[in-house]
Amino acid sequence: MAKIITLMTDFGVKSTYPSQMKGVILDRQPDAVLVDMSHGVPPHDVRTAAFMLASAAPAFPEGTVHVTVVDPGVGGTRRVLAAKADGRFHVAPDNGTLTLVAQGQRLFGPDAAPATVVAVEDETHYRRDVSSTFHGRDVFAPLAAALAGGVDIDSLGPRVEAFQRFSLPLPHRDGGTIHGQALYVDPFGNLVTNVSGRMLEALDRSRVEIHICGAVIRGLCRAYCDVPPGILLAYVGSAGLVEVAVNQQSAAVRLGAGRGTAVTVHLPPAS
Amino acid sequence: MAKIITLMTDFGVKSTYPSQMKGVILDRQPDAVLVDMSHGVPPHDVRTAAFMLASAAPAFPEGTVHVTVVDPGVGGTRRVLAAKADGRFHVAPDNGTLTLVAQGQRLFGPDAAPATVVAVEDETHYRRDVSSTFHGRDVFAPLAAALAGGVDIDSLGPRVEAFQRFSLPLPHRDGGTIHGQALYVDPFGNLVTNVSGRMLEALDRSRVEIHICGAVIRGLCRAYCDVPPGILLAYVGSAGLVEVAVNQQSAAVRLGAGRGTAVTVHLPPAS
Amino acid sequence: MAKIITLMTDFGVKSTYPSQMKGVILDRQPDAVLVDMSHGVPPHDVRTAAFMLASAAPAFPEGTVHVTVVDPGVGGTRRVLAAKADGRFHVAPDNGTLTLVAQGQRLFGPDAAPATVVAVEDETHYRRDVSSTFHGRDVFAPLAAALAGGVDIDSLGPRVEAFQRFSLPLPHRDGGTIHGQALYVDPFGNLVTNVSGRMLEALDRSRVEIHICGAVIRGLCRAYCDVPPGILLAYVGSAGLVEVAVNQQSAAVRLGAGRGTAVTVHLPPAS
Repeated sequence: MAKIITLMTDFGVKSTYPSQMKGVILDRQPDAVLVDMSHGVPPHDVRTAAFMLASAAPAFPEGTVHVTVVDPGVGGTRRVLAAKADGRFHVAPDNGTLTLVAQGQRLFGPDAAPATVVAVEDETHYRRDVSSTFHGRDVFAPLAAALAGGVDIDSLGPRVEAFQRFSLPLPHRDGGTIHGQALYVDPFGNLVTNVSGRMLEALDRSRVEIHICGAVIRGLCRAYCDVPPGILLAYVGSAGLVEVAVNQQSAAVRLGAGRGTAVTVHLPPAS
Repeated sequence: MAKIITLMTDFGVKSTYPSQMKGVILDRQPDAVLVDMSHGVPPHDVRTAAFMLASAAPAFPEGTVHVTVVDPGVGGTRRVLAAKADGRFHVAPDNGTLTLVAQGQRLFGPDAAPATVVAVEDETHYRRDVSSTFHGRDVFAPLAAALAGGVDIDSLGPRVEAFQRFSLPLPHRDGGTIHGQALYVDPFGNLVTNVSGRMLEALDRSRVEIHICGAVIRGLCRAYCDVPPGILLAYVGSAGLVEVAVNQQSAAVRLGAGRGTAVTVHLPPAS
Repeated sequence: MAKIITLMTDFGVKSTYPSQMKGVILDRQPDAVLVDMSHGVPPHDVRTAAFMLASAAPAFPEGTVHVTVVDPGVGGTRRVLAAKADGRFHVAPDNGTLTLVAQGQRLFGPDAAPATVVAVEDETHYRRDVSSTFHGRDVFAPLAAALAGGVDIDSLGPRVEAFQRFSLPLPHRDGGTIHGQALYVDPFGNLVTNVSGRMLEALDRSRVEIHICGAVIRGLCRAYCDVPPGILLAYVGSAGLVEVAVNQQSAAVRLGAGRGTAVTVHLPPAS
């Protein structure tokens, strides 16, 4: 079985920092298959990292180890977490990164079994000299290699119920209206909202109305090219969530919208 | 034999989209060797993707599978193509991406055998739930995995002669003058033209003259460092095409040139 | 044993140039494990490449082959070097790139054995048609594949003592003061200096004082989060060198500092 390890950080792609993590992993697991999930998380933005992780992990096979290092508290008192959720392993600082993956995929798919989360106390897998500023290389990469190599997650430390989570930005429904918000702006300027496509499943999608920043979008499209270039549209995107976009342009720029922008969905009666 | 799969998209390197394609491939072909060809195609720019693909594919061994997803028509009526050209496999939307690789390498090397192009109709390899906005993950990545795994290209659909191609920007020769144009601006600002080095083979290269944006370059150099930093030069570049550059600076900026800029080559008599 | 080959260039991540190097390597060593060390070296900046290489190579296992191509003199008279240093192999143009790795790790770790450096004369490993502008693909990638495949470095050419090195920016100590400078600005804007943490080993770190651009930092921290966001700090970083940073912001921007900026460290008496 392939030992897939993905890496996500806010290090960008210019430095050698991601590659140093890979060097440490390959030193311990020479047959690991390394995949950059992204090094473009906005610096220190744990919430965006949590969203990106939860939306991308399901594309990977079970058994994959996901390392996520967006870690403004590196070297301080924050704990180190390892988790197993939805069949995938995770290592990350205890700062909210695992909020979404640890909750059983409620936003992004069918409810899954509760995650196993442990606070890592066994430091034997760490590099011999742990720096205080680069735990990606010295702590998280070696832990990922250990998990990929078959180390039992429970051997790393005690299970914990209490760990850092941010309050989930869940949509709330009020009669025929869903009050949601934008969770994530992707690099195309598409706005990914917290409104799940499943909330619209039994409805006539052509009669759904989306209100955002004063604009009104009538009906859900299937694809960008359902509208001419430059026109606003909404659709259920590849993460299973309602998205707002402008065909071939940036909805974020057009609307002046960003993470947290309110999105209201007006539902027709069930069809 | 290594199952090499390259990925080229206009997704950029900030999102998790390229990695989601990789997760899907590794789920189906755990021993695939994944190479990012580039995720920096200018958004929706199919012509640049076609050039980048045709210039880079020859560096890979025969049998490599190249996935190219620059796909503004995703989810619409455009077809899905698979091709075999010059010993390499390709999957891409039917939007012009395969124009250059499918024509037998006329611009970039010796004429090759005609390409095999099929319109994919067999959807059994696709992911179970195909989104309407992310065929890179749900359609093209699984097809690439199938081809890398040895699936016969002809099993995917009927061969087609008619598919989207843009008209080739071929140079034309008028006596001792070649009228060409810039095909591609690389990230250094070097201008890659459509004038093949083979058109200059029998000539005294020191007497070739290149006219572009009012500037005149006398003689072809071999290397950037044949001229001082900041000076314009021309040479036959690594894709076998005449290029115009400024040593250690950007020719595109210096000249105000870009894709489509006219380039005239004045030839001396054959030597 | 894994045949790890890392690639570092100034090509950026938008072009297909790094991938063309990988295609050539995989054609010759299908089981090579390829790692992008960085393609974000500032264009033509050999000194930064030398620093990045020397700071990242120790994270990789012995036997790794590191290819570094920042090569403004490509196609000219500069030689091609191969080296073995600290158990790792290197290929690079003879332009100063190997200055730091070839000197036995004096800046970054315990003194190591002298490096073996050869001037490559055996061109049998090169690609058949070597372009004059892309030796990364045509010369350095094939050499890396050859070394990863077990070719003896001494078979490539004669050992050389004289090769291009820039003068090392070593700190000098004057009584209780170390006069140093910034070697590298990382993508976070952190300033990595040439003052080794080992120079401060026996001292009371809370009483060390760092002067830079008119600012005074009193005491070395352990981690960014030892100070509030937006506050200047200094610490011994992950390369074993003193660094100056601003928690969650850019010290380079805050101070107007860059490579070469003077940094003075005032030492307390040995504790």
